[in-house]
Amino acid sequence: MINVKKTLHVGMIGSGFMGKCHANAFRAFGGLFDSPISIELYKIADINDELAAQSARTLGFEHSTSDWKALVDDPLVDIVSIAAPNALHEEIALRAIDRGKTVYCEKPLSVSTESARKMMLAVEAAGVANLVGFNFLRNPLIAVCRDMIASGKLGEIISFKGRHAENYMLNESLPHSFRTDPAGGGAVADIGSHIVSMARYLLGGISEVTARSRTIHRSRPVTLGSAELAPVEVDDLAHAILQFDSGVVGSIDVNWMSTGRSMDLSFEVTGTRGAVSFSQERMNELHIWEAGKSAGYGGFKKIETGPDHPPYGNFCPAAGHHLGFNDLKVIEVSELIDTVLTGKSNFTDFREGYRVQCAIDAILRSTKSGHWEKVAGD
Amino acid sequence: MINVKKTLHVGMIGSGFMGKCHANAFRAFGGLFDSPISIELYKIADINDELAAQSARTLGFEHSTSDWKALVDDPLVDIVSIAAPNALHEEIALRAIDRGKTVYCEKPLSVSTESARKMMLAVEAAGVANLVGFNFLRNPLIAVCRDMIASGKLGEIISFKGRHAENYMLNESLPHSFRTDPAGGGAVADIGSHIVSMARYLLGGISEVTARSRTIHRSRPVTLGSAELAPVEVDDLAHAILQFDSGVVGSIDVNWMSTGRSMDLSFEVTGTRGAVSFSQERMNELHIWEAGKSAGYGGFKKIETGPDHPPYGNFCPAAGHHLGFNDLKVIEVSELIDTVLTGKSNFTDFREGYRVQCAIDAILRSTKSGHWEKVAGD
Amino acid sequence: MINVKKTLHVGMIGSGFMGKCHANAFRAFGGLFDSPISIELYKIADINDELAAQSARTLGFEHSTSDWKALVDDPLVDIVSIAAPNALHEEIALRAIDRGKTVYCEKPLSVSTESARKMMLAVEAAGVANLVGFNFLRNPLIAVCRDMIASGKLGEIISFKGRHAENYMLNESLPHSFRTDPAGGGAVADIGSHIVSMARYLLGGISEVTARSRTIHRSRPVTLGSAELAPVEVDDLAHAILQFDSGVVGSIDVNWMSTGRSMDLSFEVTGTRGAVSFSQERMNELHIWEAGKSAGYGGFKKIETGPDHPPYGNFCPAAGHHLGFNDLKVIEVSELIDTVLTGKSNFTDFREGYRVQCAIDAILRSTKSGHWEKVAGD
Amino acid sequence: MINVKKTLHVGMIGSGFMGKCHANAFRAFGGLFDSPISIELYKIADINDELAAQSARTLGFEHSTSDWKALVDDPLVDIVSIAAPNALHEEIALRAIDRGKTVYCEKPLSVSTESARKMMLAVEAAGVANLVGFNFLRNPLIAVCRDMIASGKLGEIISFKGRHAENYMLNESLPHSFRTDPAGGGAVADIGSHIVSMARYLLGGISEVTARSRTIHRSRPVTLGSAELAPVEVDDLAHAILQFDSGVVGSIDVNWMSTGRSMDLSFEVTGTRGAVSFSQERMNELHIWEAGKSAGYGGFKKIETGPDHPPYGNFCPAAGHHLGFNDLKVIEVSELIDTVLTGKSNFTDFREGYRVQCAIDAILRSTKSGHWEKVAGD
Repeated sequence: MINVKKTLHVGMIGSGFMGKCHANAFRAFGGLFDSPISIELYKIADINDELAAQSARTLGFEHSTSDWKALVDDPLVDIVSIAAPNALHEEIALRAIDRGKTVYCEKPLSVSTESARKMMLAVEAAGVANLVGFNFLRNPLIAVCRDMIASGKLGEIISFKGRHAENYMLNESLPHSFRTDPAGGGAVADIGSHIVSMARYLLGGISEVTARSRTIHRSRPVTLGSAELAPVEVDDLAHAILQFDSGVVGSIDVNWMSTGRSMDLSFEVTGTRGAVSFSQERMNELHIWEAGKSAGYGGFKKIETGPDHPPYGNFCPAAGHHLGFNDLKVIEVSELIDTVLTGKSNFTDFREGYRVQCAIDAILRSTKSGHWEKVAGD
Repeated sequence: MINVKKTLHVGMIGSGFMGKCHANAFRAFGGLFDSPISIELYKIADINDELAAQSARTLGFEHSTSDWKALVDDPLVDIVSIAAPNALHEEIALRAIDRGKTVYCEKPLSVSTESARKMMLAVEAAGVANLVGFNFLRNPLIAVCRDMIASGKLGEIISFKGRHAENYMLNESLPHSFRTDPAGGGAVADIGSHIVSMARYLLGGISEVTARSRTIHRSRPVTLGSAELAPVEVDDLAHAILQFDSGVVGSIDVNWMSTGRSMDLSFEVTGTRGAVSFSQERMNELHIWEAGKSAGYGGFKKIETGPDHPPYGNFCPAAGHHLGFNDLKVIEVSELIDTVLTGKSNFTDFREGYRVQCAIDAILRSTKSGHWEKVAGD
Repeated sequence: MINVKKTLHVGMIGSGFMGKCHANAFRAFGGLFDSPISIELYKIADINDELAAQSARTLGFEHSTSDWKALVDDPLVDIVSIAAPNALHEEIALRAIDRGKTVYCEKPLSVSTESARKMMLAVEAAGVANLVGFNFLRNPLIAVCRDMIASGKLGEIISFKGRHAENYMLNESLPHSFRTDPAGGGAVADIGSHIVSMARYLLGGISEVTARSRTIHRSRPVTLGSAELAPVEVDDLAHAILQFDSGVVGSIDVNWMSTGRSMDLSFEVTGTRGAVSFSQERMNELHIWEAGKSAGYGGFKKIETGPDHPPYGNFCPAAGHHLGFNDLKVIEVSELIDTVLTGKSNFTDFREGYRVQCAIDAILRSTKSGHWEKVAGD
Repeated sequence: MINVKKTLHVGMIGSGFMGKCHANAFRAFGGLFDSPISIELYKIADINDELAAQSARTLGFEHSTSDWKALVDDPLVDIVSIAAPNALHEEIALRAIDRGKTVYCEKPLSVSTESARKMMLAVEAAGVANLVGFNFLRNPLIAVCRDMIASGKLGEIISFKGRHAENYMLNESLPHSFRTDPAGGGAVADIGSHIVSMARYLLGGISEVTARSRTIHRSRPVTLGSAELAPVEVDDLAHAILQFDSGVVGSIDVNWMSTGRSMDLSFEVTGTRGAVSFSQERMNELHIWEAGKSAGYGGFKKIETGPDHPPYGNFCPAAGHHLGFNDLKVIEVSELIDTVLTGKSNFTDFREGYRVQCAIDAILRSTKSGHWEKVAGD
């Protein structure tokens, strides 16, 4: 276990959507979780001094820098929070690992399985605390699902149907970006990882997949507003069948131009004695079906989040008051701190980040080969 | 076209779930649809005289017989309604076609593609009116979906996600029956045809599929209550990816032991300018999303069935009063009568019944081969 | 009890929305319910010979007449089905009662409490079978609600919240009609009776009410399309508080110009150990909450109609296949036939029709007096 | 306007449910809102030194004290945040007003209208910034409702149906507390204020009310676990009809032992051209109906919160990611800061707090008098 101090200093790299989300979660943690650890928003790095300084002001960091390497090397930094573009994850993480820092990396772990594997091996060799940001798994109701599955309440699990559908790439005038970069881009890689990580969290390993993808917008502007178009080489959507290690068969669809859907990360897990149905669109409710009801009184029951679903009670003592998206990140930070304190790996450690990437990689390979593809993984 | 009379005499074979449903639909038709045709529940056939006579009394037929061939041959019979076990469909239909009768056959058309093809060729050669009972397609809201797709309101269609999930085979003490007969049995064949016919109705032809199935209850009693078990050779559930002729990719799952689901025939069709989402669990509402709303005011809209969705007005002059499952069969009968009157084929004619079977067949072949399989069809 | 024959001949007066609904229900009954009684659609009366003859053809009656009195007097007529304008109910019913016929009267029983009382007294003096058409109470799921309340499953009932909201009078160019006739017209009288009858069915007698109503469209065309407007003297909407005999307090709102609502007959009944929530908008599902679940696993459960909720099984042997609005009327007819056969009053007999009217009357009196008003009733 | 500084020091009194909620909101504000003001969690007061010190540690305040008067008097304190028991609100607020502090008081403003009126007059005389914590009004979707109403999108408003139902007092072994204190206790006063403030926010002033309430648990233990019971004098639930200044009539029900409901603050506002329907149970979605859709395509539309609904974008740049209950409090704090900066009153200033209390008071008077009661207010 790494050296635990009373106050942990966070050094963060990147200040976009996820950077802001990390910063707010770190700030909120202290007031919501009764922890021996207090967290200091110590230093933030961004691509130039101005942006970094501005982000520091806005997000509440004490210091700023345009030199992320210096941030990582700063001996006061305990936790390196990586919210930088995916292509930089490896380099940053390897340096942070080398300096013995706790590494908190946004998903996906990296842009390729090879890269992710290198990061995983490094972090395990060094023995530093580490966590990948799969925030949707932090929902207390997802823990309820997992418990119901693990405890046998649902009987033998027989089927999984999942989806991650958003619409943020629907507009064809949206230009190329890291999202459409053949290295690590595409809907499957970008948001497919959410439903794949969810499937793995609930049902365990995936051994084999078959899939078909489509590119709908076959070209996009090279930059915003540009008349010059360049071809798109990544998928806009895909359908896949998943073979789990346990024998369960499931299917998912992934779509980043799913008209009308802004956050349909949803699934149904079917067992011989029960079922659970969830959509992030209504993240504060879970629908469960349990065998054994008297005739005519069976049905899916809508459970609302509440203090009986830890750590909901840290946010509110009364049921039904709703957690929000940002609260999930606070829970994630609390799990990161747990990992630091106890030395025990969180489920979504770098190894898990790597395995998710292997499944994503197999899906992408299958869309090209037209065959079932084995999921690598060690 | 066949000889149209003022009164058409129905001869029905079989009096189970679907037989009763047919009979009620034929009886209700006259009061709900203003048609030049009136229908007479003339004769019913079942496996023995007693059962046939009792069914005649209960369902309101004038005559009964245990000799279905005599029923088919009876010159007074205009419409042969086939609600007998699937394995008998071919023989009955071929005889009825030969006698020049209108043939109304419950789905699936037959137990194999070869058999279905023979029936299709016979019916087309004879030129008799014919229809296969895919009742879920008769929902006026499904017509709304089809119109929205066909008219381009949804833009270019890019994805399909479907499901047919029930739970009637969940109980492992349910014995073997035609449902588990390797010839034509299994969840994919039995209820998969509903979601496949829906997919075809909305999006057109399916050219290729890949699938994986599972048998959960690997043996069942040979008869109800028997201690003797025999192995089950058909699927309990399957997941499949569908490649449509149009280029659209979709996926479905089919499950007849889907805990908690009694009628989840559901789908979402996604286009570049809109989407429709439907479940038979709430068959009187359709959720649609249309592009072009002012910012902040977009969302899925819940449409309730009403007189603007023909032929709902035949059932009720006021919106929101709900059609039921049995009403769908009345609409189907009205379409059958239209076919008789106009000589124009209904969408779900024997050719369509055959094509659905070809898709089902390809799915089943793929579950065995592990490869993408072409869907036959001519 | 009246003379029970093998075949009962129906004589119907009126062929509008409800007339058609009655006719279809009578026709469907025989095929769905295994009864010693068979029903014949014998004769229909309407305002002139042509309309009556046409209705007979369309709805399947053998005979027609423009003389309703002759129909009532016809010795072959066993059941007089009253689907005529409300203002005629009394005269028709009294004559039918006098002739010893079974009387089946659409709701509301009449246009005033005095008139309804006269009908009730007459029917009880004559001892003829009688029933008022409160079709929404026939939903098998409403029986589930009633059972849960009556059996104590919900504990002590403590609150009722109800509503009947439709939008059929929203358009201000709709002209005056019986609906806006000060004698028996207005939203409270027209559709308020649905939620009041529901409340009484579930919770028992109402002793006192207070209410406020509003007339939104203060004038309407005297006839369709006319430029001449006449003032509207009846209510468009009202809110009321109900004091039940049992001590329970509830509230309802009634609105016939409820934008967006086509059939929101809904309620929630709250007890100390459970609650039920229902809306006719989703008439095939009931949401129930029961005490005693393990912590974190409580919630409203969605029950879907099925064979465990009689007489659903008469319509379909499989759960989740949905009843429709017209099916409710078939169940009502089956209850009418039960009354004829057994001689036992149905819950919605003329006495109940009268009592509903008394509650409606008290609500209307309160909207004028501004005070709590006692509900009359004997 | 008060003296605006770069950093505002918060002095908070009370550290229960709402105290924690305030503290977290103050802490989160800086990272989410780009404001010229930064906030310091300066000092917290509680009933004794130990509890105060512990709360300071947990919630992140620099200083603590058991002397709330000293806290109020501390010249460094800019904002006095009142999360103390309701009975103390007046004394604390009056002192804070006297010292010229910004006063942020949890709802209800006080335990009686007289007390609330005194506070209102004092705050207005002193001209200090002030706000009452009606957090549910801060939901960006409630602003959408208000805009739709105010802009005329819904046409003329004709009806309001509302409810606040929770179940936290269902258990009869819960002892007496401030909640059952005849001075300011009862369901109507405790949570009725939420739906009343919502009604006023959306539809304006309430002039008159009539109501009936019930006490279900007629006695409760004097303290937790005590065998000694004392009678309960306050209401457990009530139904009320509201007459708005605008002419609109509405009704509400309030219930703190509403089995199955943990946060059903819900309402439907009906206008002649549209309607909005909302429940806090699904606080991230709003259901709207708008006139003018083509026939057959109308229906309630489900809007999900997103960046088009400010200040959602401060929390997340992507739609559909859900705000939580605690986020509403952050928005409230941002409105408090706006009030401080601009000197313009927020809608929920002390005057509004007083008026809500006047409406509550009239409801309670009506439950005793049995008559319509005028709502006081100046």
